[in-house]
Amino acid sequence: MTSTLTIERRIQFAETDMAGVLHFSNYFRLMEEVEHAFFRSIGYGVVSELDGMTVSWPRVSATCEYYAPLRFEDEIRLVLRVTHVGNKSLSYEVEFVRGPDRVAQGEITAICCATGESGTFRSIPIPDVLRAPLVRAASASAKAEQS
Amino acid sequence: MTSTLTIERRIQFAETDMAGVLHFSNYFRLMEEVEHAFFRSIGYGVVSELDGMTVSWPRVSATCEYYAPLRFEDEIRLVLRVTHVGNKSLSYEVEFVRGPDRVAQGEITAICCATGESGTFRSIPIPDVLRAPLVRAASASAKAEQS
Amino acid sequence: MTSTLTIERRIQFAETDMAGVLHFSNYFRLMEEVEHAFFRSIGYGVVSELDGMTVSWPRVSATCEYYAPLRFEDEIRLVLRVTHVGNKSLSYEVEFVRGPDRVAQGEITAICCATGESGTFRSIPIPDVLRAPLVRAASASAKAEQS
Amino acid sequence: MTSTLTIERRIQFAETDMAGVLHFSNYFRLMEEVEHAFFRSIGYGVVSELDGMTVSWPRVSATCEYYAPLRFEDEIRLVLRVTHVGNKSLSYEVEFVRGPDRVAQGEITAICCATGESGTFRSIPIPDVLRAPLVRAASASAKAEQS
Repeated sequence: MTSTLTIERRIQFAETDMAGVLHFSNYFRLMEEVEHAFFRSIGYGVVSELDGMTVSWPRVSATCEYYAPLRFEDEIRLVLRVTHVGNKSLSYEVEFVRGPDRVAQGEITAICCATGESGTFRSIPIPDVLRAPLVRAASASAKAEQS
Repeated sequence: MTSTLTIERRIQFAETDMAGVLHFSNYFRLMEEVEHAFFRSIGYGVVSELDGMTVSWPRVSATCEYYAPLRFEDEIRLVLRVTHVGNKSLSYEVEFVRGPDRVAQGEITAICCATGESGTFRSIPIPDVLRAPLVRAASASAKAEQS
Repeated sequence: MTSTLTIERRIQFAETDMAGVLHFSNYFRLMEEVEHAFFRSIGYGVVSELDGMTVSWPRVSATCEYYAPLRFEDEIRLVLRVTHVGNKSLSYEVEFVRGPDRVAQGEITAICCATGESGTFRSIPIPDVLRAPLVRAASASAKAEQS
Repeated sequence: MTSTLTIERRIQFAETDMAGVLHFSNYFRLMEEVEHAFFRSIGYGVVSELDGMTVSWPRVSATCEYYAPLRFEDEIRLVLRVTHVGNKSLSYEVEFVRGPDRVAQGEITAICCATGESGTFRSIPIPDVLRAPLVRAASASAKAEQS
């Protein structure tokens, strides 16, 4: 397992705004795309059935810093690094990289939840089958930071 | 001039996701909607022609904390408060309120920029005609906090 | 009951694209907004619980013709007219009007469905409590056309 | 040159709605994605500088028929076929294919325009450098239909 997950992505026309750049809200959608690619890479969907529960990950916080604008058809890399695995919570950073430059960086914290019948969320400890690969990913990320 | 600007908004179907709630990226679009309403309230568009320049406000950071999910057709109030007016930058907070409850809170910092011919952004000191009402709004917000 | 339902709407920044106009896909979101306002006006949500079923309206076709571009902060009226109420299907037109001009026109056909346990859709005859106000709206629309 | 252009695409979480399926407006964004891939395949951007003009393609009509819902993480193929090249207009069809099944089909007609200084659009005959590859694509599509 590598310390990070990277996907490549091209900025689409519909993601731009009248200022000619990727709309700032769409960075959060891109962070989610690499998050879901990460979940697939460890063998679980971001919405999955585990132990008879529908497990999902509502967000408790999301943040992004923007260093340079992105434009239509720019090709970027999205690099995810797991930064924290708590009892019920998961945090990860995403770097937005175009060519040699980091053009933005964001972080999302989500809570592991079981979805009830009426669509309500109830926070639960991260199930062990998910926790193990998440902790491995976080550990690998930390080592990569140190080296 | 009041210390804050408030708009009311109903959550639309297309803004929800398969978890049945307002997608977390759309909170940033809602923050922008109240920002633009605020700019209109002080007599300027968020994209405006001033002194022969096209002035716009690219974001340098955006953050949101989520306390409770929002669902289709929920009616909410978005309350904007200007928190800082720098030489070139502007920061504001937005509270998301449903009934008596604050369900989310975000903050955006943007930089005043002139758009060049090729669509590039160049940061500029906030023009005086814009600065004056922004400082008044920030001052009023600070007083409201203290009282 | 009037023959049509009209809502007013301002074009938002995030709905524009780098060409400076309302992205063509967003007209379909606006059509849906007035559709949902229409359902509210007859006392039913577009997603509603009826006779122990979750009733929703998946689309079978959607079309739009564009006559003139819409821009940021344009204020428009969206005028819905029910054009057909079948056994299981519902069709309606939406006119996009800015000032005196019709700038676009679209049509959506949707099928009344009950949502199964696994999230699948099963088409059903439109329940009578919904059919009655839909037929009245269609009839009123037809009369308005003739007059 | 092949008669069609095909791209593969995975349905993203943020593209779903609370009914658990790809929101019907997002099919139009997917059609645009394959359109842009097609323009890249013939060596031109969908927004390009030609003969000192900014050439773009505002839509005059867009339509989609939906045969089966698409869900989060579904992997689909988008198959574009040029159906008409007029003096100033371009039409193309897009098939949405999941596994062996065509799950939706749409068509877009766009007009070749030069963007004026004030952001207005003026229709122009399709420039020859663009027309030639478009006509070749349309001709190849027609032959594929016949065979």
